[in-house]
Amino acid sequence: MEKTEFFKPLHNIEISPIVRIAEQARKLEPEFEKETGKKFIHLERGEIDLPTPIEITDSIDKALRAGKTKYPKSGGEIELKKVIAKKLNEKNNILDITPDDVLVTVGGQEALNLSFQLFANKVGAGFSPIWSVAIENFVPYSNIKFLEIPFNKDFTINYETLEDTLKKIEFLYLNNPHNPTGKIFNYEELSRIVDLCKKYNVFIISDEAYEDIVFDGLKHVSTASVAACKGYTNIISTYTYSKSFAATGLRVGYAASKNKTAIKLMNGAEYTHTAGVPTAIQYGLLDAYKIDLSPVVNEFENRRNALFNGLKEIKGIKINRPQGAFYAYPDFSGVNAEGKDILDVLLPIGVCVVPGWAFTKNDHFLSYARLSFSAASVPLINEAVSRLQKLF
Amino acid sequence: MEKTEFFKPLHNIEISPIVRIAEQARKLEPEFEKETGKKFIHLERGEIDLPTPIEITDSIDKALRAGKTKYPKSGGEIELKKVIAKKLNEKNNILDITPDDVLVTVGGQEALNLSFQLFANKVGAGFSPIWSVAIENFVPYSNIKFLEIPFNKDFTINYETLEDTLKKIEFLYLNNPHNPTGKIFNYEELSRIVDLCKKYNVFIISDEAYEDIVFDGLKHVSTASVAACKGYTNIISTYTYSKSFAATGLRVGYAASKNKTAIKLMNGAEYTHTAGVPTAIQYGLLDAYKIDLSPVVNEFENRRNALFNGLKEIKGIKINRPQGAFYAYPDFSGVNAEGKDILDVLLPIGVCVVPGWAFTKNDHFLSYARLSFSAASVPLINEAVSRLQKLF
Repeated sequence: MEKTEFFKPLHNIEISPIVRIAEQARKLEPEFEKETGKKFIHLERGEIDLPTPIEITDSIDKALRAGKTKYPKSGGEIELKKVIAKKLNEKNNILDITPDDVLVTVGGQEALNLSFQLFANKVGAGFSPIWSVAIENFVPYSNIKFLEIPFNKDFTINYETLEDTLKKIEFLYLNNPHNPTGKIFNYEELSRIVDLCKKYNVFIISDEAYEDIVFDGLKHVSTASVAACKGYTNIISTYTYSKSFAATGLRVGYAASKNKTAIKLMNGAEYTHTAGVPTAIQYGLLDAYKIDLSPVVNEFENRRNALFNGLKEIKGIKINRPQGAFYAYPDFSGVNAEGKDILDVLLPIGVCVVPGWAFTKNDHFLSYARLSFSAASVPLINEAVSRLQKLF
Repeated sequence: MEKTEFFKPLHNIEISPIVRIAEQARKLEPEFEKETGKKFIHLERGEIDLPTPIEITDSIDKALRAGKTKYPKSGGEIELKKVIAKKLNEKNNILDITPDDVLVTVGGQEALNLSFQLFANKVGAGFSPIWSVAIENFVPYSNIKFLEIPFNKDFTINYETLEDTLKKIEFLYLNNPHNPTGKIFNYEELSRIVDLCKKYNVFIISDEAYEDIVFDGLKHVSTASVAACKGYTNIISTYTYSKSFAATGLRVGYAASKNKTAIKLMNGAEYTHTAGVPTAIQYGLLDAYKIDLSPVVNEFENRRNALFNGLKEIKGIKINRPQGAFYAYPDFSGVNAEGKDILDVLLPIGVCVVPGWAFTKNDHFLSYARLSFSAASVPLINEAVSRLQKLF
């Protein structure tokens, strides 16, 4: 290449630091297991070790055999959009959503990237720490200037910082249940956030990927259901089948909004980029919301209990109780690690986590780390806790 | 929306005119069939009426049941990339391609959109008439200035115009076999194009979606195989499983290039946008290239024969023999249509086509129309020809 310089923003996209860390761990794993005879414990990825429900794979197979291998309808198959609109009405209490307000996407990832893309070259913000893909991928892809609004240490909201930031931005990225903290925004918090966004006419991108993974009998509240009461419709809500159904490899999610222009533009961009989501998989998901998810949620809650109860007893570790998703985000600043990166401390004992720096561009919560219990059974979690107990 | 104006280029994307025409036709269809007792004949879409090979659907089902429902590897599953690299070596004669040079994408569409995106805000060109999605979607999505290089009337190349244009652009979009004309670029043409692109250091995006659908014993030549001999590697080659395997709804394609930067940036953008291609479908395609495609190609060749032999006898229609893909692109300027849009003439006799204006932004070949034989059997094609004979 002499003359050509490829599109600049693409150069700023990074491989997910989580993927990099996972690869590093996988290289260390064989030697660790050979030397110690113990299992290397992966708490770094958001992958799920539970099987995808057989009802879904059966249903995809049926669709394949019925010839659903031809072009999908732009924006999503009508039958699936109807099911999704019904679910958004009944389960998420977003009462006025119709199938026309829904866009089926290649995972929640595409729903989110398309949402961010609407605000290309503009200024947005999100609560920090923040899901790494948002800051490493969506933001540079669309050349967005992105501000971080740090949570308080107990993961509550600093409303002054929020309001100051809202004055400067066009959109707020709101991830609830929250990755990486496991925080759930309650009704009151969402209500105050929506009021402030309405006041400053800030668009909300509400990422509800973990809507079904909620503990302690809490209930997930959709931002758009809160906003609807207040007559505020500048919201895009995004969802995915990946987390609820342990089906990250099916790559189906969706976006919904009463903002017709947003959905229309996202639909055009979606068609341009992929020409749609594989037809048979869309048909295979028509009955997914009939599947009982309580065994899965119970399993994650047991893992949360094992991890939270174990870590809170370790001197020097401070941990807020995760309320949803499958992450804990404890503070390691009290442990004597001689200023080392937490990875340098934990990898040698065969435990991989994601350090704080992966979830900020602004030095927020650097002494924290994300521990995922999406792919570690309760016994493995107990083993990890016991290794940490011995270390600190 | 008061304050927010969404990203401008997205406003310039149009719903494919072919989709719009197909919808118009579908509305007229019931009344036409009721009134005349005859079938409405769709020659407008690129959809294929042949079944997807059972080997492929079986294989996807097997992958689903083996648990291939978890996150795909960024850029494509290694096993599939190995198969693709082997195919590019052996079948396409692109001898030096390795799995690292391959990116698996959501259809050929994503491979192409990512390729165009590398040249966002720059100037490119392609031979005209040109596939509508390129000019209605890829070009506005990436805010590209796009020049058209009109074919001669017999779909040969005007090398003077080509060379003049290459002086002004950074990339050439080359679609071979060509949609909408059915032209195949032969070795000599490709060789001269590559020489000129090398001379002016113009990057080539070589869209070979129809590589397998080639008639009259001709052989498809890959641009990159010609360029390799000349030491020119500024080429991205794109392919799809959609056309060869009548599997447009599986949404799997791929890009390959020896330009490491191009593939790296496209990989980052692909991950950002979709987080990858559904895992089970990738595994389901591992053995696809072992399937014998000759029955499918024979069927398309029979349809081509019926359409070409029929139309060339109609007074006022001029037609070049389609050599590949599944399109004919005849000139209707000689028929007495009183200056009407060809659709206004053909829809009333129950034949839908795509008029010339869908394939140009520059008034090239406006009196032509594309007739697709991807989804019309030989008897239906004969019936369409007979209706046209009576009309003109």
